[in-house]
Amino acid sequence: VERFKFAAMSNPILVLGAGRSATVLLDYLNDLAQKGNFRFTIADADEKNLSSKTSELPHADGLIFKGSEVSDFASLIGNHKIVISLLPPPLHPKVGKACLETRSHLITASYESPEMREMSKEISEKGLIFMNECGLDPGIDHMSAMEIIHDIQSKGGKITKFTSFTGGLVADEFDDNPFKYKISWNPRNVVLAGKGVAKFLQNGNVSLIPYHRLFDEYETISVKGWGEFEGYANRDSTPYAELYGLEGIKTLKRGTFRKKGFCDRWNVMVQLGLTDDDTNLTFSEGATYSDLMEAFLPGFKTGQFEALSAFCGNEKIASDILDLGFGGPKTEKLDRTNGKPADYLLDLIVKKWVLLPNDKDLVVMNHCFEYKLEDSDYQTVSSFGMVGDNSIRTAMAKTVGLPPGIVAKQILNNQFKQKGLLLPLQQEIYSPVLKELAHFGVSFFTTTRPLS
Amino acid sequence: VERFKFAAMSNPILVLGAGRSATVLLDYLNDLAQKGNFRFTIADADEKNLSSKTSELPHADGLIFKGSEVSDFASLIGNHKIVISLLPPPLHPKVGKACLETRSHLITASYESPEMREMSKEISEKGLIFMNECGLDPGIDHMSAMEIIHDIQSKGGKITKFTSFTGGLVADEFDDNPFKYKISWNPRNVVLAGKGVAKFLQNGNVSLIPYHRLFDEYETISVKGWGEFEGYANRDSTPYAELYGLEGIKTLKRGTFRKKGFCDRWNVMVQLGLTDDDTNLTFSEGATYSDLMEAFLPGFKTGQFEALSAFCGNEKIASDILDLGFGGPKTEKLDRTNGKPADYLLDLIVKKWVLLPNDKDLVVMNHCFEYKLEDSDYQTVSSFGMVGDNSIRTAMAKTVGLPPGIVAKQILNNQFKQKGLLLPLQQEIYSPVLKELAHFGVSFFTTTRPLS
Repeated sequence: VERFKFAAMSNPILVLGAGRSATVLLDYLNDLAQKGNFRFTIADADEKNLSSKTSELPHADGLIFKGSEVSDFASLIGNHKIVISLLPPPLHPKVGKACLETRSHLITASYESPEMREMSKEISEKGLIFMNECGLDPGIDHMSAMEIIHDIQSKGGKITKFTSFTGGLVADEFDDNPFKYKISWNPRNVVLAGKGVAKFLQNGNVSLIPYHRLFDEYETISVKGWGEFEGYANRDSTPYAELYGLEGIKTLKRGTFRKKGFCDRWNVMVQLGLTDDDTNLTFSEGATYSDLMEAFLPGFKTGQFEALSAFCGNEKIASDILDLGFGGPKTEKLDRTNGKPADYLLDLIVKKWVLLPNDKDLVVMNHCFEYKLEDSDYQTVSSFGMVGDNSIRTAMAKTVGLPPGIVAKQILNNQFKQKGLLLPLQQEIYSPVLKELAHFGVSFFTTTRPLS
Repeated sequence: VERFKFAAMSNPILVLGAGRSATVLLDYLNDLAQKGNFRFTIADADEKNLSSKTSELPHADGLIFKGSEVSDFASLIGNHKIVISLLPPPLHPKVGKACLETRSHLITASYESPEMREMSKEISEKGLIFMNECGLDPGIDHMSAMEIIHDIQSKGGKITKFTSFTGGLVADEFDDNPFKYKISWNPRNVVLAGKGVAKFLQNGNVSLIPYHRLFDEYETISVKGWGEFEGYANRDSTPYAELYGLEGIKTLKRGTFRKKGFCDRWNVMVQLGLTDDDTNLTFSEGATYSDLMEAFLPGFKTGQFEALSAFCGNEKIASDILDLGFGGPKTEKLDRTNGKPADYLLDLIVKKWVLLPNDKDLVVMNHCFEYKLEDSDYQTVSSFGMVGDNSIRTAMAKTVGLPPGIVAKQILNNQFKQKGLLLPLQQEIYSPVLKELAHFGVSFFTTTRPLS
């Protein structure tokens, strides 16, 4: 651990990992530091990236940090009171253990892990707050849903159905490829999205969709003001029945939005096996994406369009996939000669689905509740959409970055009575966050109508 | 470790794990011990099972053994010269490490693992033999193929294509369910068969089939004297190009046989997601396989046959699956209320696909070679089939159990020049094994014809 400017001791907040999507969070913390007359610390492995960030942030100090063990994190954290970790989720348990050692609070935008749950008792005993799932999805989705759930329940309503979808997409003006998708967040997560089995409640039954059916079994959902989207189920929704205080609910489904046309095309990638992340494949130097396709579709190279059309059962989709770089005049060379299918696919979409400097991304969220109140049935729909400023100050960077910043401010000002391992599901947590988010343009449009 | 009869010191051979499929191996070793005037040891966790085995084997001593750590295995092995491990494959690396400590030879019928490969140098340095893949498949398939490969190559032939399929099935007289399948080996492996991505060489290209397409993309292969079988690709065949000395071969595929009708039906299980082994599912007491199906096929319970027919696109298959226990008058209760889908499916097939005491199993193997010799093209087909005696002395127990026994005899008699981490691919290994196997009915029918 090499010090950059100042001793970290003087700084209450440490941001771990300063990738592209950290920009808005860092600006927020810089403003906070200016108003509060303190400094904050950014730790990152990449010296150049770090200098470029801190040079624009007069109240930030940079630390080059390359460790990955609990003891590395603990000596990095030192006297920082609050840690916001933007590191890859598998590192969070180690950061958590370090925070227990240094008696620091921890905020992440990632799913609460079983390892983190094992620390729960010690977190509480030490009077600390570890708040996960505090970004966009999971994060703002929880907070905005809980505000409505608590409102319905306070009136005596009983919620029977709740579905919630969120998408990190590209604004209509800039969605100029047939997948209608550009990359506004970690591209590896785009390639691996939906891996495993999706699980949710449907009409009183647990429902499971295996990965190979996920992009085939999407639903189409209209979001007022933003158009129609394809929604597929995301991970395991069932624990949220209890977490949201919706025990006995019949339908509960959290999901992901894509624009119309994406799922049918991505489904072909899944059906072919191109998203596999386990099997090594080697090619000779100079091999192309057409060679890669041949591995999944024998005979492809001798009749690309025919072979792919037959596989897809759809000529337009086949031609769109060829155009992505798999065949025809747009065939791309492989960037590596050794890797998993998912690696090769990642290389391609990172090149093809670039959010250009002046492109704008789009975040869309839609909640739908059905509930019974005094013998009548109602439906409440609540949605929000946001277009980013450009490829740096994206809607994604805002909605993922601001909640951890606001939570950090609240902790710094000692505003939360609750301590321990938390999700942003309690009013004392979500209310101030949602209130402040509204100033940044995160405002929900909510309508309620009786169900006949 | 409790001693049963004699000190293990006097015994040169230790068999680890004495499940049902060990019977034929144990008989073979008992004969060997009688002829050689020595005793051998069987170690198993189940005292009752152990006593029933040793009571029928006058030359065997039993040891109750419940350990699972290297040190447990090492003290169990002690002075035994040769260990034959029939334990679950994940335990083999620990058994291997113990054998390095005790300087014992090791024989298994399981695939050589990366962990075992890490021990390769030490195995050689200590002059030991660790021989894996020494059962039926992998095992007899390697040995019988290598005999033909070496024969073709010794004449100057160049092999361009090699496919090899093996099936552990049930004899025609007793295949009285629509899946034409009964369980003659580890039933969990039947449920999880094919998980991962199958990889092989096809016309000079590497070809991959993801799990969800595996049971849809089988081929139909006729085996002289035994009928037609469905063959699907098994694991990664590509390393065998080098291992078999077939560098540059265009097509190389190892696969698994099922009887006609199996793959289309099993494919429905895979498509539904019922073979998933990752996601926990809980049910209330008294729930049935119809409730389980509902989780994968919403609406199933309100119209079983219609829902399943629509999913399968085939009424006969839908009705066969209902009859297996998922619906209609044959609906089965769940045996557990908590488990993965694969656990529930396992419970069902263990009940429904029982090899009854007088049922006979069937093992079928088929190799097909194409090669060029003096400017002509030839095809050699070599196959063998064996029907078991009954549900105990199965063809599976014979073909999995005899090769390790014969290899143990060869090691005991110091017949192998080669030492180290071995597969049964060299003539000095496979020749005596195949020769002795022929006395037990494992004999191949081989024909060669010119290809026009």
